[in-house]
Amino acid sequence: MTHKQASPTLHPDRTGNTVPIPAGDTGGSVGKVELQIVTFDGSDHVLHLEGGGSLSPLTVAYETYGKLSASRDNAILVCHALSGDAHAAGYYGHSTDEKPGWWDILIGPGKPLDTDRYFVICPNFLGSCYGTTGPTSIDTGTGQPYGLSFPFFTIRDMVEVQRWLIDHLGIKTLTAVIGGSMGGMQALQWAISYPERVRGVIPIATTSRMSAQGIALNEVGRQAILSDPKWLEGRYPKGDPPGRGLAIARMIGHITYLSEESMHQKFARRYANGNGRSFSFSKDFQVESYLHHQGDKFVRRFDANTYLYISRAMDYFDLETDHGSLEAAFSQCLSSFLVLSFTSDWLFPAHQSAEIVRVLRKLDKEVSYCNIESDQGHDAFLLPGHRMGDLVSGFLERLKEGGAP
Amino acid sequence: MTHKQASPTLHPDRTGNTVPIPAGDTGGSVGKVELQIVTFDGSDHVLHLEGGGSLSPLTVAYETYGKLSASRDNAILVCHALSGDAHAAGYYGHSTDEKPGWWDILIGPGKPLDTDRYFVICPNFLGSCYGTTGPTSIDTGTGQPYGLSFPFFTIRDMVEVQRWLIDHLGIKTLTAVIGGSMGGMQALQWAISYPERVRGVIPIATTSRMSAQGIALNEVGRQAILSDPKWLEGRYPKGDPPGRGLAIARMIGHITYLSEESMHQKFARRYANGNGRSFSFSKDFQVESYLHHQGDKFVRRFDANTYLYISRAMDYFDLETDHGSLEAAFSQCLSSFLVLSFTSDWLFPAHQSAEIVRVLRKLDKEVSYCNIESDQGHDAFLLPGHRMGDLVSGFLERLKEGGAP
Repeated sequence: MTHKQASPTLHPDRTGNTVPIPAGDTGGSVGKVELQIVTFDGSDHVLHLEGGGSLSPLTVAYETYGKLSASRDNAILVCHALSGDAHAAGYYGHSTDEKPGWWDILIGPGKPLDTDRYFVICPNFLGSCYGTTGPTSIDTGTGQPYGLSFPFFTIRDMVEVQRWLIDHLGIKTLTAVIGGSMGGMQALQWAISYPERVRGVIPIATTSRMSAQGIALNEVGRQAILSDPKWLEGRYPKGDPPGRGLAIARMIGHITYLSEESMHQKFARRYANGNGRSFSFSKDFQVESYLHHQGDKFVRRFDANTYLYISRAMDYFDLETDHGSLEAAFSQCLSSFLVLSFTSDWLFPAHQSAEIVRVLRKLDKEVSYCNIESDQGHDAFLLPGHRMGDLVSGFLERLKEGGAP
Repeated sequence: MTHKQASPTLHPDRTGNTVPIPAGDTGGSVGKVELQIVTFDGSDHVLHLEGGGSLSPLTVAYETYGKLSASRDNAILVCHALSGDAHAAGYYGHSTDEKPGWWDILIGPGKPLDTDRYFVICPNFLGSCYGTTGPTSIDTGTGQPYGLSFPFFTIRDMVEVQRWLIDHLGIKTLTAVIGGSMGGMQALQWAISYPERVRGVIPIATTSRMSAQGIALNEVGRQAILSDPKWLEGRYPKGDPPGRGLAIARMIGHITYLSEESMHQKFARRYANGNGRSFSFSKDFQVESYLHHQGDKFVRRFDANTYLYISRAMDYFDLETDHGSLEAAFSQCLSSFLVLSFTSDWLFPAHQSAEIVRVLRKLDKEVSYCNIESDQGHDAFLLPGHRMGDLVSGFLERLKEGGAP
């Protein structure tokens, strides 16, 4: 096993919001952070994947914020979403207009994931293109990037790799696992895969199984990539990716991350220039410019094959089928749960969270639930302006007072 | 002006539902129908388009059901949606497993648009690819299909052409104009363009202006077409269209026509074959197979350039901007209105209909509104199983009793 600090990759920019570093003051910020890298190899670290195939060696990129206590009992694991990475908080210090990590609203001194009290860990998940082994990594067997020879992976496989990291950091029990969207799937999977190792689980804006609509939207995004002539059956050169297809996939994604109401507030029917209708197919409306901008930006920071794999891992997430029923899936859980959804999220609508809560209550598990009022759509979990932070703080406080597991 | 009956084009199949012709019995059906064609030419029939440019000669394909009364006062105009055509009811009689016209649930003897009482007219709209002049038509100036040299058109232009047809049929006042989705936009436009010529207006599952989300979804569909290398700047040969792009656009469309709930009911997470997860990018789930099937079917029946133009006409529909305000838009209307929306329609959500109703009420116009309970999503207006038919019947009955305009 090797362990080093690496140059950070570019951090994601899901929301498009600019949060400048306060001049000479990082009040509430964890400040400057560095991406860390650990590589697992050897016979005790061969990852046997749910879909067949195995991976070894396996590198994990992660960041940590705050200090691990002497008794190693103050760790919180943060799980990121589809296009996220390990850079959840703070700054790399590359430039003065740098945006902070993707969950900086939640992580920092005095913030809900209070780095004065907790040791917060955010690993890049298995199969991503931000440092942890994935389709863009070099296959040591061939010396070439895996590409489509990368084995298919699942949320369960991701959690297994995260467990390796937790073991590596010498942590027996996590205070909490928290994540939104696909990160929430990982949080749920932790509660099921390692009941005795997680005290609190906070799945946000997520589901226990990808819906037909969710699969459908993923499939359209994948088809856009697969139909791009530059995709070349996955063997595109790094400098000439299937950009138009990936951009279309991202545009679809962005529509699903917002709500009809938030799109109206952001753009209404405003024109991109003062000229009104051009009577052409160019970008007349601001919402069109925005989508193109998001698509283009994504192509510069993300990998098309990786998008295919990760979206498939989402499609395959289905705790009910894995365990025969949702009751069976959660029956062995020992954690307390805080389940959060947002009223305007139509990608992972509230009733999907309510279903998880219903089953946990039926099983007499400790569970709190809030469907948070917000018009920001699915992306609300990445944005300020609602009660999520307070609810997370309160839950962690109660966890501290309580005992289990 | 020439007038003839033509061979029908293929009729659309929006819902995918098969409604077989009852053997030897067309109970409630208008029976066998024929597509009719009229060509307008001459200096009194030059269409000057809102976006500039003009069209002449101009052909309109339409169907009629029932008989025009001697006083020519029993006509109802049916306006179709994006991918629809003039074949709204009955059968061409081509085969025994033929599906009826797209609104056969509503049109026929004893049905809400009762062909024993009303003369129902359904024209294919301007710019479509089903008989009325559009991008696939031959430009008489060049002898070639218009393609991208076709002028941009708007909902208002469509209504202008429909007015020509109504004049041609010798009808002064329409009993009603009815349409769903983009058809509802045309119905609203009729009330505004020709207040004295429409007694009742029934806009269903529609809006007074395309939302930012709606424009965004249209733009993604267009980008899928424009990115297809076979699009060739619109100059693709008829036999080799940009099929992958058009199929993707249609797949996105289909997701928006259904609701999350109806997709769950139709497909849940059922596998397309008995083998479960393939750990590949093939069509594992029934919902994926369904979308591909719908996409492929659409490519065989629709034209890619036409899709670009029509979706742009939707984007540009904005009564508020056209008139300064929605109040100003509706201020001169003389018709009675029945506005209908569906609870699970997220493409044209109920609040957009409610906004129309609020303004009409403020202006003291005669308006009834119902947000119809349905889990079928936007496509509900094409499907049986809810109150739409009864509400339409009741409204027409009250119109008959009442007077205006």
